[in-house]
This record gives sequence, structure tokens and C-alpha cells, in this order.
Amino acid sequence: MVKVAILGYGTVGSGVAQVLHENQDSIAASVGQSVEVKYILDVRDFDQSPYGGRFVKDFSVIEEDPEVSIVVETIGGAAVALNFTQRALRAGKSVVTSNKELVACHGLELTRLAKEKGVCYLFEASVGGGIPIIRPLTVCLAANQIEEVCGILNGTTNYILTRMIQAGLPFETALKEAQENGYAERDPSADILGYDACRKICILADLAFGKNVDPQLVPTEGITGISLADVDYADGAGKKIKLLGRAVRQADGRVCAYVAPHLVDVTHPIAGVEDVFNAVFVKGNAVGDVMFYGRGAGKLPTASAVVADVMDIARSGGNRSPITWGDGDPALVCGTEELVSRFYVRIKGAADALRNQVGEIKLLARSGATPDEAAGITELAMTEAQLREKLMGMEVLSLIRVLN
Amino acid sequence: MVKVAILGYGTVGSGVAQVLHENQDSIAASVGQSVEVKYILDVRDFDQSPYGGRFVKDFSVIEEDPEVSIVVETIGGAAVALNFTQRALRAGKSVVTSNKELVACHGLELTRLAKEKGVCYLFEASVGGGIPIIRPLTVCLAANQIEEVCGILNGTTNYILTRMIQAGLPFETALKEAQENGYAERDPSADILGYDACRKICILADLAFGKNVDPQLVPTEGITGISLADVDYADGAGKKIKLLGRAVRQADGRVCAYVAPHLVDVTHPIAGVEDVFNAVFVKGNAVGDVMFYGRGAGKLPTASAVVADVMDIARSGGNRSPITWGDGDPALVCGTEELVSRFYVRIKGAADALRNQVGEIKLLARSGATPDEAAGITELAMTEAQLREKLMGMEVLSLIRVLN
Repeated sequence: MVKVAILGYGTVGSGVAQVLHENQDSIAASVGQSVEVKYILDVRDFDQSPYGGRFVKDFSVIEEDPEVSIVVETIGGAAVALNFTQRALRAGKSVVTSNKELVACHGLELTRLAKEKGVCYLFEASVGGGIPIIRPLTVCLAANQIEEVCGILNGTTNYILTRMIQAGLPFETALKEAQENGYAERDPSADILGYDACRKICILADLAFGKNVDPQLVPTEGITGISLADVDYADGAGKKIKLLGRAVRQADGRVCAYVAPHLVDVTHPIAGVEDVFNAVFVKGNAVGDVMFYGRGAGKLPTASAVVADVMDIARSGGNRSPITWGDGDPALVCGTEELVSRFYVRIKGAADALRNQVGEIKLLARSGATPDEAAGITELAMTEAQLREKLMGMEVLSLIRVLN
Repeated sequence: MVKVAILGYGTVGSGVAQVLHENQDSIAASVGQSVEVKYILDVRDFDQSPYGGRFVKDFSVIEEDPEVSIVVETIGGAAVALNFTQRALRAGKSVVTSNKELVACHGLELTRLAKEKGVCYLFEASVGGGIPIIRPLTVCLAANQIEEVCGILNGTTNYILTRMIQAGLPFETALKEAQENGYAERDPSADILGYDACRKICILADLAFGKNVDPQLVPTEGITGISLADVDYADGAGKKIKLLGRAVRQADGRVCAYVAPHLVDVTHPIAGVEDVFNAVFVKGNAVGDVMFYGRGAGKLPTASAVVADVMDIARSGGNRSPITWGDGDPALVCGTEELVSRFYVRIKGAADALRNQVGEIKLLARSGATPDEAAGITELAMTEAQLREKLMGMEVLSLIRVLN
């Protein structure tokens, strides 16, 4: 029997307990032995819980119990979660987590510590919730040189954009609706400003390119600047506005990683990813384009990924090949300065003026447009700086990269 | 160093050699040692090939060479490929294949033989070409009870349907175009009659439900009966016609597996899968809906999956957890008899007659329709037999299940 301790009995932690309980028979059959929750660590009391007797408040009980071979960390954040993860790994226990902040900021040291201790540190649930992506990227696509990873990595912002596009709600109203439906937190900044997506694209870039990508080096733009005017112009061009995290291999081997809204053609598979769904698009030099799609958050989807990691470790008897990557290097990571794209631009001014200054541009129309506003998509790919130079002197209301 | 032998230097076999060569540095870094092709078995001569000296015509050279630890079988078919696979496994070598016919028809015995011999039999490339699906299904989604697997599993038929839908080409013209582009074989029967998709849904059902599903028990319908009239009516209802392989868990634990064209709503992620792309949709009791998308065939995409399996075995030193499943049982597998759906139906006759006989039906229109033809989608879900009873006495031109 494999004994597990769960740290943090919040949404994901309680989902992990639920999946381990509800699917215990099929899990035991698949692993070859049963997997049981021995402890749940939480500062709160859960007297009514069926797991009543298993709750502990002192991490050292878990740390010092040699029967516990796998620790599930679903506390979140990078403070106490870091400390407990380090202590669990040092105590020779494998750790499974859904904590994207911890993996993005400390994944390199934690995967190395795990390797050194001969145990596992797995984090399938940290990107894309229940969507299998970490293992497919590191194992199934291992024969490829990865050219690009790109994804809708945050369900909250995708829900808000979907509601703006489909129901014509302004950003603030769509955000409020997301909060009412439990899709956005009371303080939604980490989602709407793109920080959550930034952590996830860093984890994907670490794995895809084998070098640590520091979230602090990754330019991050959220969706607070997107207006319904932009949504309507995009619609007229057969495109949807999506918040993407991207990591693109440059010809010189550097990785261009960033988070920003993009105009995506409706025929692109990512354009069909609506509501709280996430999708990760990977381009490899052998496989071409592949995409992984599903629920990027939520109690049971996230627990599905956590429990799969637990089962993988249990099945391997802890002998699973370690996942880790190389040191980071600020010189390895570049922003979007050199990334050429077509751009959507909306200005205060007349269409003629826009065309005169930019040159080749496909002008766009929308119902309700006023004569003092113009928008278009550049015909040529260029850097943002090149475009801004052309737009010098104009009042730029929106400037959004077009996904090619 | 890991030494590999490739059986069959056709499209996939030569792709495997190419990927192992082109990505040799990143492969060696990932595996921890280099992976080298020692032999290529083929009856033909390839004097001009850079692998010239490695070609052999006698399988026993490979079988008897203890240096070869992994055999890649890309011969295809279930005759000589079966014999060589059995001999390789018995000789203590792991085998990796892209051969869906062999896995669908003999996978159970071959995975068991591999397990008995303490080696691996892996087949990621047998379904969906380069799309990671076998490992995600067996490892990443292992915590779930799988409710349904459903997919566009054949690129040839998806290309033909896409051309019928997008360009209005009749079936025969679209098939000819597919043949000219190398997407369909000269004898296209295995694709257009659904047999290829049938093999793949059987492999997915084996893994998803843990019991062997015999392709001979799986009702299989191809796309030869699809007309442009059906495409147009479907379009008018906001739906696309797609050939799907489906395996659905029934309430009593049986598996309903079949291959047939379906009307799929344009908002369903599968509807956006066009041309030769494949996609596999999986519904689990924890994860909900997830989808895997990519190129389902082709030299390098398929080689990407084969080489990933080779690397997985090499990395694990042959100690990878075996993949296998339980015995089959004709009582476990059911056809579509009890599967209730809404249906699209096209008849020779008047719309009033159709409505009178079927009852609640949403009638459909298309440009160019003649008065002696009517089509609609039933409002209620029912079995095919129930619908056919209602249609008794009418000349049914098309009857296609609607994906719910």
C-alpha cells in the first residue's frame, strides 16, 4: 500500500482526496497496489469531514513518518509551500504539486533536489489543470526539437474574452460575471494582468527548451486594455482576441517568451477554445503542430492530474526518470523586441491618416464606429518598434499582435 | 549506447532513421546516452542510402545480435510483422511499432508476451500518428474512470469530408484529389470504408476500458454514402459531417464501440479539425473533456511518436511499467443497438410526410433542393431501430447520427 499525505485541504487538495477515494478500485488495479491518504495537513478544523482522524496541523508528523512516501502539495504560493516541499524531498519523499507559482519560481532547485535525493518532483497539474501537457511535452514529444509553445493558459481571462466576444459584454461586466460564477477571484489581478499565464508559459518553456526561464524576464500584458471596439474590429477581420502565453525558439537559440493578447484567425484551432477551457499548442520539428485541450482549472480536473502523478510515482516505485532542466541565463531569454508579426492597430484619427503613416494596411470596419477612429491590420510583418515608429505622432488606442 | 534495428524502410521506417539522425544530439541529451540505428531490415536494396552498410535482409541477424535492445517495427500488416515482433520479444528485445492493424488484432498477446519477457511493447504511433494519445490515456488520465473516447482517427476521410464541405466537391472528386496529393492510397478502401478508424478505436477502447475489443465486433461504416446534399443540409443546421470512431461506456459496464459518420455541431472542438488532421476526445469522470489534436499520419509526425517510445524505453533501461489490458469478451462489447441519439434523416418524399411519420423533427433546407426530397434532425434522442420504425415505408436516402 502506498501512503500519501495531502498538504492543504482547499479546492484542489479536497479534490485529490475525493478522486483517490471515488476511483480507488481502478487506481489500485492500475498501480498494482492501493493508494491511501494517511494525513491531511491544514490549519483549519474539518470536524465533519469523513477524513476527520487524518487531519494534522504539524508538518513534522508527515515529515517524520517513514510510511508516507508521497506528499501532495496543494497549498499554493511560494512561502510555506516551498519550505514543506524542500523538507519532504530532503526526507526522501516524492512530491506532487499543482502549484504553478512554486514550480515557475523554484522548479529548477526543487527538481534538482528531488533528483539528488532519488525521489520525484512532479507537477502535471501546474499547467492546464487536468490537461495532459507536462508529460506529453517531456516524454511523447521528446524526439522533437521544439520550435514553439503557445497557449491559452488562463481560464478566467478566456472566459472574460469569450463573454466580450459572444455576448458583447464590456470587460468590467464580463469580469463581474466571472466572479459571480466562481471563475475569477475577488482580487482578479493575477489572472487579468497575465501573471498566472506568465508562470505557466515559463514552466512550459523550461521543459520545451531545457533552460530555466525566469518569470521576471518575461514581458507580461493582460486583457484590461481590450475594448469592445477591438473585439468588433477583430470580428470583422475573421479573428478573435485571445490572451496567449508564447515561447518561441529564435534562430540563434534564444527563447522569446511573453504573455499578451493576440488576434487569432477563426480557422486556427486555438480560436475555438472558449469559456474556461485552456489549450496548449506545440510545434515540433518532426511532429509539426499538436494541440492539447481541456479544463485548465477546477477541483476535479486539477485533481485528475495530481493523482495521475501520484500513480506514476507509485507504479514506478519511485524509480521514475527525473524531470529537470538546465540553468537559466538572462542572455538566453529575450522579450518581443525582435519578434516580427502583423499587428492590429486602432488609432484616434482618420483612416486615410492611418494608411498614409503605416503604408500597407488592411483597414477594418465596425458598426458604431465614429469618424475620428480608425483601425486596421498591417499587411507586412514587423517588430513592434518598427510599427510604433510609423505611428509616431498618432494617438494609439490599441495595438495587438496578430498570431501568424 | 542504445542500438536499434528498424524493420521496413518505407515512409515511417525511413522517417524514424531521419529523426534519430537529425535530432541525435537532443535525443542523446534527453536519454542520457546516444541512440543509434545498427540495422535496417528491408527486402529492397538501398545502395544510395547513407545507411548503406546497415541494411540486412535476414531478420535472424537482428534477432541474434545481443547488442540490439530495441526493434522498431514499421513493416505494417499482421503477417510477417507479427512473426518478427514475436521473435524479437522472445529474444528479449523491446519492440516499438506504428502498426495499428497488428496492435488492434494482436496487441493483447504481444503486450502479454512483452510483460512475460520483461521487455516493452509500445505503440504510441499506432493511433493519431504523432499526436500523443496512448501515454496520456494510460498515464496522465489514469486517475479517471473513462466514460468515452471519440475521435477523428483517419486523416484521409477527414480530408475528403473537408473538401466536400469547404469546396463543394462531390465525394469521388475529393477522393481523387486526396489520391493526387498522396493523402489516399490507390486502393482507398481501408480508409473510406472506415476499417482504419475501426482499428484505432479498438486500440483506444482496449486502453480506456481495460478489456480487449475485437475489431470484428465493431460496427464500421465509412463515408462512401455521404452526398453533397447531406453536407449542405448539415451546414444549414450549423453542423459538419465527420467520420468518428467512438467507444462509450454503458451504464452496465459494457462498451459500445463503432465507427460511423456523425453530424457535429460547429461549436464542438472536433468540428474545427480539418484536412488531414486527427483529434481524439476523451471524457473522464474527474478531468471532464480533454482533446488531443495533430497530424494523424505522415513520415515525420509518425516517426516523432515512434522515436519517443524508443527514448522512453532507452531512458528506463527497459524497466518501464508495462502497458497491457484484460481479456476480451463478446458480451462486453455492444454495437449501436441501444445507443440513443438525435438523427439527421433525408428521405425521398415531402417534408410534411417526414414530419407526419417522425413527429418532432427540425426540418432543414438547402439551396437546390427538389420538392421530392426532405431532410431534418429529430428533436428527440432515440435508437436507430426506433427511428427506422417511424420511417417505415419511406425511401431513406441518408440517416446519420448527431453527436450530442
